[in-house]
Amino acid sequence: MTIKSPIRSPPRSIETLRWNETSGRIELIDQRILPARFEMPGYDSAAAVANAIQSMVVRGAPAIGCAAAYGVAVEARRLRELASAGFAAGMASAFEVLANSRPTAVNLFWALQRMQTVLMSTQSQAPPAIADELLREAHAILAEDIRANRAMGVHGAALLPDTAQVLTHCNAGALATGGHGTALGVIRSAVEAGKRISVLADETRPLLQGARLTVWELQQDGIPVTLITDNMAGHMMQLGVVDAVIVGADRVAANGDFANKIGTYMVAVLAHRHRIPFYVAAPLSTIDRQLVDGRKIPIEERNDAEVRGFADQRWASADVGVRNPAFDVTPAELVTALITEKRVVLQPNSARIAALFD
Amino acid sequence: MTIKSPIRSPPRSIETLRWNETSGRIELIDQRILPARFEMPGYDSAAAVANAIQSMVVRGAPAIGCAAAYGVAVEARRLRELASAGFAAGMASAFEVLANSRPTAVNLFWALQRMQTVLMSTQSQAPPAIADELLREAHAILAEDIRANRAMGVHGAALLPDTAQVLTHCNAGALATGGHGTALGVIRSAVEAGKRISVLADETRPLLQGARLTVWELQQDGIPVTLITDNMAGHMMQLGVVDAVIVGADRVAANGDFANKIGTYMVAVLAHRHRIPFYVAAPLSTIDRQLVDGRKIPIEERNDAEVRGFADQRWASADVGVRNPAFDVTPAELVTALITEKRVVLQPNSARIAALFD
Repeated sequence: MTIKSPIRSPPRSIETLRWNETSGRIELIDQRILPARFEMPGYDSAAAVANAIQSMVVRGAPAIGCAAAYGVAVEARRLRELASAGFAAGMASAFEVLANSRPTAVNLFWALQRMQTVLMSTQSQAPPAIADELLREAHAILAEDIRANRAMGVHGAALLPDTAQVLTHCNAGALATGGHGTALGVIRSAVEAGKRISVLADETRPLLQGARLTVWELQQDGIPVTLITDNMAGHMMQLGVVDAVIVGADRVAANGDFANKIGTYMVAVLAHRHRIPFYVAAPLSTIDRQLVDGRKIPIEERNDAEVRGFADQRWASADVGVRNPAFDVTPAELVTALITEKRVVLQPNSARIAALFD
Repeated sequence: MTIKSPIRSPPRSIETLRWNETSGRIELIDQRILPARFEMPGYDSAAAVANAIQSMVVRGAPAIGCAAAYGVAVEARRLRELASAGFAAGMASAFEVLANSRPTAVNLFWALQRMQTVLMSTQSQAPPAIADELLREAHAILAEDIRANRAMGVHGAALLPDTAQVLTHCNAGALATGGHGTALGVIRSAVEAGKRISVLADETRPLLQGARLTVWELQQDGIPVTLITDNMAGHMMQLGVVDAVIVGADRVAANGDFANKIGTYMVAVLAHRHRIPFYVAAPLSTIDRQLVDGRKIPIEERNDAEVRGFADQRWASADVGVRNPAFDVTPAELVTALITEKRVVLQPNSARIAALFD
């Protein structure tokens, strides 16, 4: 695989999920093949969307939540000609297959809960009407996510100096959300506000979301970006070229501990040592108030092949044992501020996070 | 590229450098293509050896030192029919090309100094006799390195518990030395002494010496090894499955600060936070007494393509800016002990390191 530049047919503003009314499909940017190819296949069943989430066609906690909502909506549309009993049984299966797609990002369960609430409140209606309501709710979840990212962007941008190099890990950009992004949304909003922001992007092994997706997104927007391997972050901090760190989150516990892409903890520990502000940008839908702290966040372990190589290339022995946790947990004590759509929470703890929901 | 297992014709005891008296060549395991292929091309000029060092056919500070010594020796043999003046001029060029091959590992300069001393002390002799002396010195440097690794192994093994999982970064094994290894030498010696040691190997982007070389070496010896990406080290420490860290060094300053493969600093900071012993195994030839501390260690910056992909695969845009420092510097305060062939230096500092040379 060789990446040719410029990229073929780049979209101007990145739409990670796009509803196609004509086909009745939710179209998703296939993030496994970026930046080599830009493709937006359509999905018309819950099982197909669940598979897209599991195989990481779509990834990033908020985007997973939006995709799951549309997974319910397309399934309802697919089954709307059934009688009520058959429709209800099909929808129950749809929720189950979507809930089992990936375990860590809580937005998935949050979005399914919202869809479930709509389903419950419409159960007296005929399936076609229920399907219409579920599609409206999916559209609402997507629209709210984009608005939340815009609000986080404004709140977060105020935290950055007028000139700064910001390090980020993985991709918490438009591709990880309905649009604009969480961590990259803050950076985009800071740039829109006239600040001179450059980005240091960790490549983020094993699936290289930093090298492939964050770099691609920022290049679309003309925001200066420099790519490094994950193990260079500490050296860059030693050199004094990192002014702030901003990352996203897959699940924030009630006390501010949070799960994010594997390697985030390492960056947080290094930022703490170097007294560099460490910011987490996440919408309220990422906060799991049921979990007292981060110890109980379920951490997905993915398949060995991802670590033995990349795509179709293998560089390690086929029989070497591998660990492949997709996330790690960073304690709240290492977080300078949690940026939400409601406001910025400095030094997040249980009381300050609970106050967000008042 | 696909790695088939088992590997074709593996050597039983790894000889990273092998003198071939018949051909007059120094043969080097081509470490760029392991573990997919095992090849040992021969080199018969200083320029060819310098190129092998620069392109990382051979790498690892002690192995680079040995290779440079043989680079001088093969050049002397190649030029031995010249008159003394031509021979002297040729040898001066040889030293220069070898000294300019890579900047960070001080063993390169240490070995060239030893060869220079032999050249100076034999200048009244005829070129063929000088060439013989230089070859003898190269053999001595190689033999001493293997002995030093064995001694480090014995000293270092005593530091490890009877049962331990040890994390290592990059490859400080037989392949990085004349044989046995520095960090992996300690692990091998501990296993030989009956300890139950398993290894967690950081893959070590961008050139993946951990995934390719450390895994291969340990599998040859039947030592249990688990491969992780570099950004998983902190999570593994959080899980409590790392009992000690052992790494090698490319240059140790007089105060114990040391340069090693990029990412070592990150591991040291994490080990410090988790109160996990952090050991550096390095022969005296890696200590640069001229440098008061680590700030002046020259850090090689390698080419961008290494970060944009691996081998012939590229996953990032061809036009993204890249940083590619090959090493970082870890301050002595993070080092639990420096393991040398003479003895173990606990909490290394200037006085304790100076005492090693008394």
